[in-house]
Amino acid sequence: MGESLQGLKRTSMCGVLRETNIGQEFTVMGWVQRKRNLGGLIFVDLRDRTGIIQAVFGEKINEEAFKKADTVKSEYCIAIKGTLVKRQSVNNEIPTGQVELKGEYINIFSESETPPIYIKENLDAAENIRLKYRYLDLRRPDMQRIFKIRHKTAKVIRDFLDKEGFLEMETPVLTKSTPEGARDYLVPSRNYPGKFYALPQSPQLFKQLLMVSGYDRYFQIAKCFRDEDLRANRQPEFTQVDMELSFVEAEDIMSLNERLIKKVFKEIADVDVKLPIERMPYKVAMEKYGSDKPDLRFGMEINDITDEVRDMDFKVFKNAIDAGGSVRAIKVPDCATMGRKQIDKLVEFVKDYGAKGLVWIQNREDGIKSSISKFLKQETIDKIFTKIKAEVGDLILIAADKNKVVFQSLGALRVHMAKETGILENNHEFRFVWITEFPLLSYNEEEGRFEAEHHPFTMPMDEDIQYLESDPGRVRAKAYDIVLNGEEMGGGSIRIHDTKLQEKMFEVLGFTEESAWERFGFLLQAFKFGPPPHGGLAYGFDRMVMFLAGTDNIKDVIAFPKNQNAFCPLTEAPNVVDDIQLKELSIEVKEKDK
Amino acid sequence: MGESLQGLKRTSMCGVLRETNIGQEFTVMGWVQRKRNLGGLIFVDLRDRTGIIQAVFGEKINEEAFKKADTVKSEYCIAIKGTLVKRQSVNNEIPTGQVELKGEYINIFSESETPPIYIKENLDAAENIRLKYRYLDLRRPDMQRIFKIRHKTAKVIRDFLDKEGFLEMETPVLTKSTPEGARDYLVPSRNYPGKFYALPQSPQLFKQLLMVSGYDRYFQIAKCFRDEDLRANRQPEFTQVDMELSFVEAEDIMSLNERLIKKVFKEIADVDVKLPIERMPYKVAMEKYGSDKPDLRFGMEINDITDEVRDMDFKVFKNAIDAGGSVRAIKVPDCATMGRKQIDKLVEFVKDYGAKGLVWIQNREDGIKSSISKFLKQETIDKIFTKIKAEVGDLILIAADKNKVVFQSLGALRVHMAKETGILENNHEFRFVWITEFPLLSYNEEEGRFEAEHHPFTMPMDEDIQYLESDPGRVRAKAYDIVLNGEEMGGGSIRIHDTKLQEKMFEVLGFTEESAWERFGFLLQAFKFGPPPHGGLAYGFDRMVMFLAGTDNIKDVIAFPKNQNAFCPLTEAPNVVDDIQLKELSIEVKEKDK
Repeated sequence: MGESLQGLKRTSMCGVLRETNIGQEFTVMGWVQRKRNLGGLIFVDLRDRTGIIQAVFGEKINEEAFKKADTVKSEYCIAIKGTLVKRQSVNNEIPTGQVELKGEYINIFSESETPPIYIKENLDAAENIRLKYRYLDLRRPDMQRIFKIRHKTAKVIRDFLDKEGFLEMETPVLTKSTPEGARDYLVPSRNYPGKFYALPQSPQLFKQLLMVSGYDRYFQIAKCFRDEDLRANRQPEFTQVDMELSFVEAEDIMSLNERLIKKVFKEIADVDVKLPIERMPYKVAMEKYGSDKPDLRFGMEINDITDEVRDMDFKVFKNAIDAGGSVRAIKVPDCATMGRKQIDKLVEFVKDYGAKGLVWIQNREDGIKSSISKFLKQETIDKIFTKIKAEVGDLILIAADKNKVVFQSLGALRVHMAKETGILENNHEFRFVWITEFPLLSYNEEEGRFEAEHHPFTMPMDEDIQYLESDPGRVRAKAYDIVLNGEEMGGGSIRIHDTKLQEKMFEVLGFTEESAWERFGFLLQAFKFGPPPHGGLAYGFDRMVMFLAGTDNIKDVIAFPKNQNAFCPLTEAPNVVDDIQLKELSIEVKEKDK
Repeated sequence: MGESLQGLKRTSMCGVLRETNIGQEFTVMGWVQRKRNLGGLIFVDLRDRTGIIQAVFGEKINEEAFKKADTVKSEYCIAIKGTLVKRQSVNNEIPTGQVELKGEYINIFSESETPPIYIKENLDAAENIRLKYRYLDLRRPDMQRIFKIRHKTAKVIRDFLDKEGFLEMETPVLTKSTPEGARDYLVPSRNYPGKFYALPQSPQLFKQLLMVSGYDRYFQIAKCFRDEDLRANRQPEFTQVDMELSFVEAEDIMSLNERLIKKVFKEIADVDVKLPIERMPYKVAMEKYGSDKPDLRFGMEINDITDEVRDMDFKVFKNAIDAGGSVRAIKVPDCATMGRKQIDKLVEFVKDYGAKGLVWIQNREDGIKSSISKFLKQETIDKIFTKIKAEVGDLILIAADKNKVVFQSLGALRVHMAKETGILENNHEFRFVWITEFPLLSYNEEEGRFEAEHHPFTMPMDEDIQYLESDPGRVRAKAYDIVLNGEEMGGGSIRIHDTKLQEKMFEVLGFTEESAWERFGFLLQAFKFGPPPHGGLAYGFDRMVMFLAGTDNIKDVIAFPKNQNAFCPLTEAPNVVDDIQLKELSIEVKEKDK
């Protein structure tokens, strides 16, 4: 049976011992990273959260400890007591490499079977094995580094918001289902057969209520839940840094959050974020980058060459222009000699984004090559090249279609080409941008109605309110997203604080008065009692930590994540439950339709 | 329609304006507490999170503002701009009572219907009305005070634990059902028909895994869930301050937490907690106070008078003693003249705790009166009075039964008498005590088996491990509760870190190897890879805030609580959901048995 502490006190962590400590006696506790028996001497590397210290055992140092040291194996949990001495063969690769402990006493708390995964950095193991043995995976120093970052990031955020007068307030996890956007997780009620709680997709409604209640500045680092088919970097439960402020306008929220972002990235990653962060209207982002999450670390902007090609006798362009669309191009430097096969792949690539094809022009030293050579007059080429400032070596990629298709295909292609050409390798920039002036509504063609782009409580821009009924698609919102290196890190908006405007908004969204009240009645009711002007913002905390830790896998920043199928290989949740539990909840599992 | 900010900036909060600010211009924003129209002058009290400021409007000050001020009513949300001046009629009851704003401009953000509850301190409204209009209830200054305390308490705890090297780590909310103790809330899985997640009753298993993973010191302020029939001060979801430490013994955890408690109570409530906090073994607590949550703010300890009454010819005592029970007494000062009716009520009271009756002796100035006068010789009275140090004026209350019944009835009676006699009125003491050496197991007579007193991972005391199989009831645990003024504020234990001992524990608890593995397999599996000695503690955070805020209602410290039936009158959760939602989850609501 494993030994217990029996009064033994740890007097130091492993990773902090240095030459200045030589001559002192220490007791360290941790896990055996490795053991080497060199006959007369046994070396044990002991690991804890702070690092590794080497201990040496010998018959002459202490015979009992020497014998016991010989029995330990990797990942045994032990204590070592001994005097710190100068190390014979210095190891400059670890901070404690100048010293070692002369092992005078050893205590074996517990033994270990051979671990199914290596406890080391940059492990290349199958994900399901890592998740099944998550407690071992989490022992790895790179994982421990991430969870220190996660802890510290939350701490910096809380300290900042506390100083700014925010109160952290908890909102319910067991709440009401308001299916809008994603699917809710449901929780059957035992007391009310046939009724269900829902887990919140965000604290949105509650934080607005807290503003109605006069709390002025609220925040919460809150668990949120979405029952969706998981894409990469989505988890059924995720964490949000959520805030809401009263008596503010969009600019106030953005400038406060800039200061927060600056502090977080400085303190955690030693990155200097220059303020103010650039603001870019949605329309500009779409036109230049084909995305509302533009990656500004590289160029390859989209250029509108509709006018330049308008006179061409090329049906694809003509049709697009005649149908109210456009012809736009990006130029990819140093790719003019790209082979046909590779270009064909690009054509395939844009088809995933709705484009029917892709026109290309190679501006080679030996002249122009193009998929539409026979339609291209020199004059047109000159016009295009002047417009896009083409240089020798550029590969020009052109899409012609409805604007939406052109933007999304060239936007994706732009990012794709950045990856393909490797221009972001060794780029350690953190390039932030606020995207503003989002459309308030987007038209759902399938359902033939307008939908809220963010959510139905978003305030229209003052100058656009007049179009709310006549031309809803034209109305811009007081909404803003904070984008980092081409990914959305957070977003928010000023909310509607006026019942009448809110009712009109529901009308435009096609809610009947009854259905709006059924879903959001308590918010509408609350708005009858003096709601303040208010707005807020929420960050994807997991994603923020991913940036700070430099990982592109959300499962690396969540201690116990689910896999791609919302299953936990460690606990095997979800799982079957006793019939009696279901009976108490008045539900039964439905037989599959035969 | 309500006005918006349109560039108007708040330049001060309401409650902070003082005489030193006189002559400056301010813009304040908030809610109208009240308006008085005195003809030529209109006074508006404006309230925000920080307090109230009076503004005065007059035709001569600003005619437009004066007219607009006349239209506002209670709870309108407005902005007032004006110069701060000395107030004519000083109000010494509020901090801003020396000054007022000369109202030069007013902006009405939103109107308010007449609120169904008053926005004032110490509101005496029905609970369901308060919960239905929670956003108005939360506007009340005493509620706002509580949520500032709640925020600050969490902040102080986080700062302390961060400094002590703890990492805050999030554990899953969607996890596995391990029905042990309370009932789990279940969440049907859409991906795995017939399978369910469960919401955690505590992060217990995960925090132990984090110790296996080498995180060394973990904490979390975590939401926990229990689907139980609600008693007073229980909520379906509640918040726990949860921590776990490696390489420590019980004393280390207690002394660290004493420092935490001292800091929290000093910073939040300006209470000085003297360290070390008294440690009291469970056995002593039961014998002296009849409770493992003794209230030490008053005396009336329980005395064992079995020896003193052993020779009496009184069947009730004799039977109790012969059956292995005991006879014990408390004395209540200044109650010797209590009337028969009141005493009869006490007899009824103890019956709720299993006692069959209650013997009383009044030590009155005019002599002894007793319910068992005819059995009481002077000699016995003398012996009893000497033992319990009775004085004239004492009412002696005696119970005779099995020890368990005697303890629980006299323990409850002791607390009851403290309330009845009002000795705790105006007592502002915070009397902490650690209860230690809890029994590891308790015998469930209905099921004829031993159950874990805390949970099955609790470490037995070293000297008692030998009795684990031969005499399980005798084994004490390395467990400790922190009790404040007669209520449990938190508790924890050292955990078993040895697979063999853990398996033996499950055996004693009547688990088959299979059923233990089915439920806790992942923990048992993890323990095969070098688990460290570890232990932890968890506080009921809601209860802690109740103490700090001085309220005895848990609903006062939770922003959006459920009512006694786990229902939320505000959102009307739980509620019905669309059939399509249930279909996706492969469940159906069972018809009631006819």
